[in-house]
Amino acid sequence: MTLQEIHALVSQALQNAGTSRLQADATATALVTAEAQGLASHGVSRVPMYVAHLRAGRVDGQAVPSIVRQTTSATLIDAANGFAFPACALAVQAAVSAARTSGIALGAVTNSHHFGVAADHLEAVTQAGLVGIAMGNSPAAMAAAGGSRAIFGTNPLAAAFPRQHAAPIVIDLSLSEVARGKLMVAAKKGEPIPLGWALDQTGQPTTDPQAGLAGSMLPFGSLGGGSKGAMLALMVELLVTSLTGARFGLEADSFFEDQGNQPRLGQVFIVIDPAALGGQAVYFERVEAVMSAMLADAGVRVPGYRRHDLATQARLHGIELPAATLTPLLAMVQA
Amino acid sequence: MTLQEIHALVSQALQNAGTSRLQADATATALVTAEAQGLASHGVSRVPMYVAHLRAGRVDGQAVPSIVRQTTSATLIDAANGFAFPACALAVQAAVSAARTSGIALGAVTNSHHFGVAADHLEAVTQAGLVGIAMGNSPAAMAAAGGSRAIFGTNPLAAAFPRQHAAPIVIDLSLSEVARGKLMVAAKKGEPIPLGWALDQTGQPTTDPQAGLAGSMLPFGSLGGGSKGAMLALMVELLVTSLTGARFGLEADSFFEDQGNQPRLGQVFIVIDPAALGGQAVYFERVEAVMSAMLADAGVRVPGYRRHDLATQARLHGIELPAATLTPLLAMVQA
Repeated sequence: MTLQEIHALVSQALQNAGTSRLQADATATALVTAEAQGLASHGVSRVPMYVAHLRAGRVDGQAVPSIVRQTTSATLIDAANGFAFPACALAVQAAVSAARTSGIALGAVTNSHHFGVAADHLEAVTQAGLVGIAMGNSPAAMAAAGGSRAIFGTNPLAAAFPRQHAAPIVIDLSLSEVARGKLMVAAKKGEPIPLGWALDQTGQPTTDPQAGLAGSMLPFGSLGGGSKGAMLALMVELLVTSLTGARFGLEADSFFEDQGNQPRLGQVFIVIDPAALGGQAVYFERVEAVMSAMLADAGVRVPGYRRHDLATQARLHGIELPAATLTPLLAMVQA
Repeated sequence: MTLQEIHALVSQALQNAGTSRLQADATATALVTAEAQGLASHGVSRVPMYVAHLRAGRVDGQAVPSIVRQTTSATLIDAANGFAFPACALAVQAAVSAARTSGIALGAVTNSHHFGVAADHLEAVTQAGLVGIAMGNSPAAMAAAGGSRAIFGTNPLAAAFPRQHAAPIVIDLSLSEVARGKLMVAAKKGEPIPLGWALDQTGQPTTDPQAGLAGSMLPFGSLGGGSKGAMLALMVELLVTSLTGARFGLEADSFFEDQGNQPRLGQVFIVIDPAALGGQAVYFERVEAVMSAMLADAGVRVPGYRRHDLATQARLHGIELPAATLTPLLAMVQA
C-alpha cells in the first residue's frame, strides 16, 4: 500500500471514533511516518490503543490546541487533552519562527498525550536549517536512583542536526535500558530477561519478565550499578513538568490500559539557530569534521540514517502492513 | 584552612605562573568550590596541571574573554585560549540576563579550556530563580557507537532547578561509565577493572586498566551492549562544537599531558525562565510534587544535596587539604 493510502485509513479510523479532521490527520501523519521508518511499535499498530483512549475519554478527539503564553523566545501550548501531534506541531512551529530572530527558542506542550517518536517532531526544525532538541515524559515506568517504585516515564530524548549535502543526523533514545515491549515479548514466550532490564516490585533486579512488568524498567546504564540514566530521567521529568504544569509519570495512568485518566503529559522542544552563534559556515564545517572522524572508524554509522533510508524506500514503493495491524484498522474504518 | 585562605593561595600560584588577576581569581573560585563540595578530582589538585599548561602555552593566562556575537537570546563568548572560568561566567551571565526578558537564552563559549564541574556554572542561574542546563566537551576519551577509536570527550552534562524553600536540585554527570581516574588508580594497584569501563586499542572490552588507558573509556550504559551513552556523547559534542566553532574531542590534546595544543574546546549553557511558560507558582508546585514522590521511596536522595551540605560545612569550618595537594601549592606560591 502507498503511504497515502495508509494515512487515509488511519485518519478515517480516528475520525470514525470521534476525532476532528485536524487531529486525525496530524496523528495519522505521525503514525505513518514512524511506520515508514521501520518503527512499527510507534506506528499504525497504535491505532487501536488511540481509539480505546478516545472511547474511554482519556483523549479528546475534538480538542483544539491553543497558545497559553508566549514571550519573545518561549511558547507554551495547551494540548487540551487532545492527541499530542497537532499541539507539538504548533510548539515546534512557534519555536522555529522565534529561533530565527532570537537565536534560540523553546516550545512546550502541556495537557498532552503520547507523543510518539520524539525525533520526528524535529523534522520541521532541520528542514529550516536549525538544530533541535525534543523531550517528553510518559507514564511511570522507572524508579529514581536508589528507589524501588516507578515514578518517571522512560522519557524519550532526541536531537537533530541538519547537514549541508546529506540527511540530518538524528539522535533518538528513551532512557530505559530496553523498551517495555521486550519484556512483554519475553513474558509471552516464557523466556527469562537479562539482568539490567528491570526490577521487581520490591526493587530487586529480576530475570523474570512478569516480575519486571509488575515492577519497573531500569534506566539505561544501571547494569554496572550506575545511576546516570535515572538522573537523566529526572532531568527530563522536571523540565517537561515544571515548565509546563504537566503531570509527572506517577500521576499519569499507563498508555497500555484502555481505562485510566487523561495523562496530561508534557513535551519540550528547543530550537537553536547556528547562524546566531558561530555562523552557518562554521556549523557545517564542524558537523562534517565530526562526521568524517566518526565514519573513518569501520562499523560506525550516522544515527538516523537507517530510519531515513527506510522512509525513502517506503515513499517510493509503499509498505506492507502486517495482517495483525491491517485487519483491525480496516474493521475500524468500516465501523 | 578557610576557603578564603585556600582561594588566595590558588590565585597567587596561578598569578605567579603568569595569569592575570581576573583569570586567576575566577579559576581559584571554581577550584575551591569543587574542593569544598568534596570533588577533589576537580579541585585544588588541578593547580599543577593548570600551571603546566600555562608554562607550555596550552592556556593563555593573559587572555581576555570577549563577546563574539550576540542576538536577542544567544551569546557566543571567545575564551581566547584563556582559562574557561571567566569566559563561562560571562556566557552564563549573558544567558541569565537574556532569559529574563525572552524566556530562554543560550550562552556559549569557544576556544576554551577545562571547565571543571559542569553544574557549578549554573549556580548563578539558580540564584536568579531560573533553570539551567550546562554541557561541554573534553579531549577524546570515548569511541562512537560501533567504533574503536576515541573521538568524543566524556562530555559532562548538568542541569539545575531552583526550589522555593530548599537548595537547588543539581544533576551532574559525565557520559563515561566511570572517570578515567578510576583506571589510573587500578593501574597503580595492579588490579583488574570490571567489564563495561573501557575498551583496548583494538576496540575490544578489557579488564586490564593499562589497556583501557591506552584504548578508550566506555560511554555509560555500554555494559548491556547499548549505545545510548555514545549517542548522548555525540549530541553534546555536536552542540558544543557546531554552534561555537570549538574543536571536537579528537582535535584536542589530553589535559593529563603537560605538552600539547591549546584545546580550544566548547561549552554551552541554556537558561530558561519558568515565569515565561507555566509560571513560577506552577513551577514550584511541580518541582515539589516530583520531589515528594521521589523522597517517599526510602533510599532516594535529592541530587546535589551531598555536595551542597559539604560546601556549607566547608564554608563554616574550612577544609584540610591533603599534603599531596597543599605541599606543591605552597611551593608554587613561594616560587
